[in-house]
Amino acid sequence: MRDSTDLHRERYSIGAQEMATSAVRTLFVKASRPGLVSLAAGLPDVSALPVTDLADLTARLLRRESGIALQYGAGCGDPELRTLVVDLLALEQIHCTAEDVLITVGSQHGLDLLTRVFCDRGDVVLVEAPTYVGALTVFAVHGVKVVHVPMDGDGLSPSALRDTLSQLSIRGRVPKFLYTMPSFHNPAGVCQPPARRAEILDVCLAANLLIVEDNPYGLLPFDGDIRPALRSLNSDRVVYLGSASKLVAPGLRIGWAVAPPGVRDRLTRASEASMLCPPMLSQRLLGAYLQEVDWQRQLRLFRDLYLERRNALLFALARHLPEGGSRAPSGGFYLWMSLPGTDTDRLLAAALRVGVAFVPGRAFYADGRGGDELRVSFCCADPATLVEGARRLGEAFNVIRAVPMPRPLQYQRSLDQ
Amino acid sequence: MRDSTDLHRERYSIGAQEMATSAVRTLFVKASRPGLVSLAAGLPDVSALPVTDLADLTARLLRRESGIALQYGAGCGDPELRTLVVDLLALEQIHCTAEDVLITVGSQHGLDLLTRVFCDRGDVVLVEAPTYVGALTVFAVHGVKVVHVPMDGDGLSPSALRDTLSQLSIRGRVPKFLYTMPSFHNPAGVCQPPARRAEILDVCLAANLLIVEDNPYGLLPFDGDIRPALRSLNSDRVVYLGSASKLVAPGLRIGWAVAPPGVRDRLTRASEASMLCPPMLSQRLLGAYLQEVDWQRQLRLFRDLYLERRNALLFALARHLPEGGSRAPSGGFYLWMSLPGTDTDRLLAAALRVGVAFVPGRAFYADGRGGDELRVSFCCADPATLVEGARRLGEAFNVIRAVPMPRPLQYQRSLDQ
Repeated sequence: MRDSTDLHRERYSIGAQEMATSAVRTLFVKASRPGLVSLAAGLPDVSALPVTDLADLTARLLRRESGIALQYGAGCGDPELRTLVVDLLALEQIHCTAEDVLITVGSQHGLDLLTRVFCDRGDVVLVEAPTYVGALTVFAVHGVKVVHVPMDGDGLSPSALRDTLSQLSIRGRVPKFLYTMPSFHNPAGVCQPPARRAEILDVCLAANLLIVEDNPYGLLPFDGDIRPALRSLNSDRVVYLGSASKLVAPGLRIGWAVAPPGVRDRLTRASEASMLCPPMLSQRLLGAYLQEVDWQRQLRLFRDLYLERRNALLFALARHLPEGGSRAPSGGFYLWMSLPGTDTDRLLAAALRVGVAFVPGRAFYADGRGGDELRVSFCCADPATLVEGARRLGEAFNVIRAVPMPRPLQYQRSLDQ
Repeated sequence: MRDSTDLHRERYSIGAQEMATSAVRTLFVKASRPGLVSLAAGLPDVSALPVTDLADLTARLLRRESGIALQYGAGCGDPELRTLVVDLLALEQIHCTAEDVLITVGSQHGLDLLTRVFCDRGDVVLVEAPTYVGALTVFAVHGVKVVHVPMDGDGLSPSALRDTLSQLSIRGRVPKFLYTMPSFHNPAGVCQPPARRAEILDVCLAANLLIVEDNPYGLLPFDGDIRPALRSLNSDRVVYLGSASKLVAPGLRIGWAVAPPGVRDRLTRASEASMLCPPMLSQRLLGAYLQEVDWQRQLRLFRDLYLERRNALLFALARHLPEGGSRAPSGGFYLWMSLPGTDTDRLLAAALRVGVAFVPGRAFYADGRGGDELRVSFCCADPATLVEGARRLGEAFNVIRAVPMPRPLQYQRSLDQ
């Protein structure tokens, strides 16, 4: 971002000078054209919520306690909501008190605060390969260097983690934390089995490495079997990030962090500096929802809905695209695909022309990898629309396969190195 | 914040290592004891809002457009709300388009984003003496050095600003921006007259200095005469921060920033990294409120309410405390008092014992000044309670005047230097 007509260009912070244009924003703009089938965004289907119940609940809430719901609140979050989050956490075998919970403006806010609290410019963090786009954005804004650790079908590889730590250690680098998404990974779709989680924790304990566990999809397993969180295995070395965005609704912008006391105190202070307190209206509404609505039934409804969509998209993709595609994820919102020999940036351009959007693989890596990978979401369209999206994706694929790709110079150069 | 039992103490960022315990939080905890009269907090009186209308409005909103209000939104804010904010800004003679407006999670979030975009650790910003506590918190978290510029009865002094800039220039320091609150200053209560605003702008233009104008109280002038904002005089060099917290309700956590294009693009990117998007429920509710409720009438009601409270508190303080107290502010929430010879930290301890809270002056300076000053709020209690608060404050004052203050060693040392 450089503009010679910008009067303030000499005054920006180092981070702001380095800011790149947001690829995600550009995508959102493109994906909002009428008629386009978006397999790009990770939007939960809020139309499946009990809207009338929510409307009545909110009206009652405002009549009953507007003095709380419309006022400033505590920086660490509404005490009642913190208590209710403790009950949610117990579903993943996390046992903690309301004091351990910090309410945030979505889990993105939690990750941003954690990065502030742990990282100076140039510090290193470990992430999976691939990883969540929004995490890469946070790390980029803070000038944090990202080192990717390979995954296999069971998620993050403990041996690869050990190797990466050794290589960093040789270069005298100590990473500040490992950022991982153990359940229903975005974008990779994988879920770490219990034994894998224990192995990863062991490697981290041996290396004295803090784990940041991001878990927005943990309560949406298609088989109904909620996995114990990494945090349930260790409360000193794991900071857990949770969110109401996929559980209820992202429009509330409510998430939570569960952290050891010293970390939590610093997160709270950083959070107060960043926005005084999370929105009380959202917090009280979420609290009322968790108390007065049968949200477990709603979660089952969501799981069934997303499972049906996963199946529809998987089936249609198998018909319209070559093999080597996605494994069936056991939860979450995403399929991750590999199309060897296909440049997925180029595929996206062709796809948008025939009316379908997805996210090209490069978005999920900090180092330019992922050029023949892509993420498709099955969360935010009905089965018929997903099938049509897959058909269009197949059409785009055939278009670009018919026109041979010029071998890009940059790619050749990196092969020669 | 240092704790030798904290496993993570070696890993914190420089900023997190330097974090102090929040004095404001401690105060809030103290001020929430039953029976205590709090003249400390700046809470608007949300009980004066048309609560039934708001409840009905929210219920209608959720029935009509839950797909928008409960979903993720754009990082820069809801397009409809941005357009409505343009109309609000016009009341202060700011003429801009929806594109110029970025919606934030309260104006605190706007200030935090601005500080990220402009400041690296060790950078200098200019602020009034005294200034807003929350701004000092943001600057401290970012490791930014704060230089205070004196005020007079008309607010920030242009000649003092010129002198400060010269002194900094001699030391080779160029401040990143001036943070100022031209209308109904928190905590000083003063309001810059139009000529003063023009003078301040001239000094800043000559010095090529960006102005950050924080204006949460601008639409609450007791005489009904809304002052043209500093931003109305110049759109290239002034970033404006506004807020719905005092206009409607802080529980929504909605504010806005109006900035030149290059700055706005960077603020948007930093905002997306910090929490993806502001809460859509709050944004849509605020939008509906501005369209469907007679909010101008509500503002007049708020002004009359706060004016009555200001008068009650001023009158009672004149009775119970020595002269040299506050001038009558023409808007906002606060009285700023000077009690020469009285340590207001010590006064607070005595005041809490007799059941009244306020904020001691030192909280509003970064350099330890303000030890004989204090801020009392008249916003969040009815006149009778305010009168009782003033009586208790007088009682506390008499208690500490009767017991001679031991001359503190620390104070003596700083005098000797």
